[in-house]
Amino acid sequence: MNSSPVLELAIDLMSRESVTPEDAGCQPLMIERLKALGFAIEVMHFDDTLNLWARKGTQAPLFAFAGHTDVVPAGNLKDWRTPPFEPTLKDGYLYGRGAADMKGSLASMVVAVERFVEQYPQHSGSIAFLITSDEEGPFINGTTRVIDTLVARDEIIDMCIVGEPSSTEYVGDIVKNGRRGSFTGELTVKGIQGHVAYPHIAKNPIHQALPALTELSQVEWDNGNDFFPPTSFQFPNLNSGTGASNVIPGELHAMFNLRYSTEIGHHQIKERVYQVLDQYDFDYDLKWTLNGEPFLTATGDLLTAVVDAVTTVNGKAPQLLTTGGTSDGRFIAKMGAQVIELGPVNATIHKVNECVKAEDLDRLADMYQNVLINLLGK
Amino acid sequence: MNSSPVLELAIDLMSRESVTPEDAGCQPLMIERLKALGFAIEVMHFDDTLNLWARKGTQAPLFAFAGHTDVVPAGNLKDWRTPPFEPTLKDGYLYGRGAADMKGSLASMVVAVERFVEQYPQHSGSIAFLITSDEEGPFINGTTRVIDTLVARDEIIDMCIVGEPSSTEYVGDIVKNGRRGSFTGELTVKGIQGHVAYPHIAKNPIHQALPALTELSQVEWDNGNDFFPPTSFQFPNLNSGTGASNVIPGELHAMFNLRYSTEIGHHQIKERVYQVLDQYDFDYDLKWTLNGEPFLTATGDLLTAVVDAVTTVNGKAPQLLTTGGTSDGRFIAKMGAQVIELGPVNATIHKVNECVKAEDLDRLADMYQNVLINLLGK
Ligand SMILES: [Zn+2]
Ligand SMILES: [Zn+2]
Repeated sequence: MNSSPVLELAIDLMSRESVTPEDAGCQPLMIERLKALGFAIEVMHFDDTLNLWARKGTQAPLFAFAGHTDVVPAGNLKDWRTPPFEPTLKDGYLYGRGAADMKGSLASMVVAVERFVEQYPQHSGSIAFLITSDEEGPFINGTTRVIDTLVARDEIIDMCIVGEPSSTEYVGDIVKNGRRGSFTGELTVKGIQGHVAYPHIAKNPIHQALPALTELSQVEWDNGNDFFPPTSFQFPNLNSGTGASNVIPGELHAMFNLRYSTEIGHHQIKERVYQVLDQYDFDYDLKWTLNGEPFLTATGDLLTAVVDAVTTVNGKAPQLLTTGGTSDGRFIAKMGAQVIELGPVNATIHKVNECVKAEDLDRLADMYQNVLINLLGK
Repeated sequence: MNSSPVLELAIDLMSRESVTPEDAGCQPLMIERLKALGFAIEVMHFDDTLNLWARKGTQAPLFAFAGHTDVVPAGNLKDWRTPPFEPTLKDGYLYGRGAADMKGSLASMVVAVERFVEQYPQHSGSIAFLITSDEEGPFINGTTRVIDTLVARDEIIDMCIVGEPSSTEYVGDIVKNGRRGSFTGELTVKGIQGHVAYPHIAKNPIHQALPALTELSQVEWDNGNDFFPPTSFQFPNLNSGTGASNVIPGELHAMFNLRYSTEIGHHQIKERVYQVLDQYDFDYDLKWTLNGEPFLTATGDLLTAVVDAVTTVNGKAPQLLTTGGTSDGRFIAKMGAQVIELGPVNATIHKVNECVKAEDLDRLADMYQNVLINLLGK
């Protein structure tokens, strides 16, 4: 198989064992290439996390590529057909941890920018890279802190492509033009512990909670909209009991998580949950975590440019979806940026034998380059 | 304080560290005393459990005292004001592990029989002791196996007093003339594990189970009767989830326990539970354990003799109750025996600083002796 500049860079990045939050030399490699193009380099080291903000140009609009150099752990080594950190080309596929999530995307971005800058040395606007080594971890010292730094000095990204693997069958079949919000509640229902033989002097928090939990699981939160499926509610965890068969437990712990559309806000969700719970007569504590607010890029220059670029390369327009988990896109959208996620096929991410079709990375570089041409090439 | 033969024997028994299933020399001590009275001694050693069947006489009716020499562990030694296995008389109370549950009762039984036999050497019927060292443990090799042995050779107990601590304020205020049944179900609801962001390709067993569990917790099983409170249903344990906030679990485990009256059978309970569950559309496994069937001694010579004996000693009739946990009485009742539980105040059993009012043990011996007189002294 013929290699390509994109594959070569992807392989170079994938050889570095950058298990989150390690960068393992990936960002220095990118810095070298971007410096050569005239990018101003700013390394932002927050605690255990290495972040890169690289910018070329001072004019508006500011277009950024965003991504991460960290990867999830390899998992069970015995189940890998090739060593996870020895990237291997085989039968047209590139195997190794990070192939799809998302060192392949990083390589495509860098090569796309190199080609674009050579083609349009006098391009309009500015190009930036926002790269972190903390996307697969707790995302505390990564993108969100870089964004805080940028906002504090009024350096606002106008448009951003996040290189997360958005595709399902072939590269560019799906782009994500938004993501649902994620909101988690941890409910503790307080009963009175006792012996099952004496229920009248105990209060079983399981019995107290069951009707309320049932009602919560059946609420219709919204009907979604053109871009979002209806808000969904799930209990990932429900625990009560000492293990003994003769003890009425003292507490019940239930965790619920909502993936919510732009049709509802997290304040409304909270209000509705309290409304349900307060119909019932029990003591409880409820702790909330807003994992991410939803975002949506329904229209705008970026969306037009991406749809056009994908259509040019694939001969077919991408589908716009907002499904799936959360991504760092939420932090970038929050500063007011248009955000689109476009990256490789995600079938093998976070699994053993992660891989990407080798030619997909070249197509992805073409798409990224076309986006740059559409936005800054005029 | 003056000691008494009952207290002396209780202290002797309590000095032996017979943490379940150890007998630690308690039964040999009882055997010595009973042999002297002409009892035929049969030691039944089943695995780790020592059991004693001692019988005096061959005639009907066969009256038996039942009890156990094992005790629960001492618990936190720092919280004991006196060493748990150094029985101590203080301010009219006898302190130490087993004082109330139930070495005090054993001492009262032995002394009561000694006095009765001296008083009525030609008594009618037969007297027996059924003693185990496995009542506080898994009760597999204790009373139930002795009963099996007796039934196999057609040696049927007609009437039995179990020495479990039945009293609450003073000795004999309450006697138990029955016990509720205990029936446990372990339910596994089977869903399909997945990611909370993709609920449509998962099946959350928590959501599936909640309405059914709610309904089960609200069933009215019966209204009880003159002797039993209504059957009660409790979930002691409910568990599902991986701990992660983004994973829909694959299974839910719920354990429920019924304390049931004689108004309902365990077959009816089973039927009703399946009826509730099968209204809902989910896969489940359900494993049943019949911990004990209910028993009731509503009338009969034994009940009359016990009520009379307690009234004679206390000047006040006892209250008849069937509340509380299960006891070995269930195994004895199953062979057709009339069974009554009469023993000391149970306020401190299984706790640190277990104790019994010293004079209560003498009163208990008087009650036991009066029962013997009422039944076999004519
Ligand atoms: Zn990723
Ligand atoms: Zn006991």
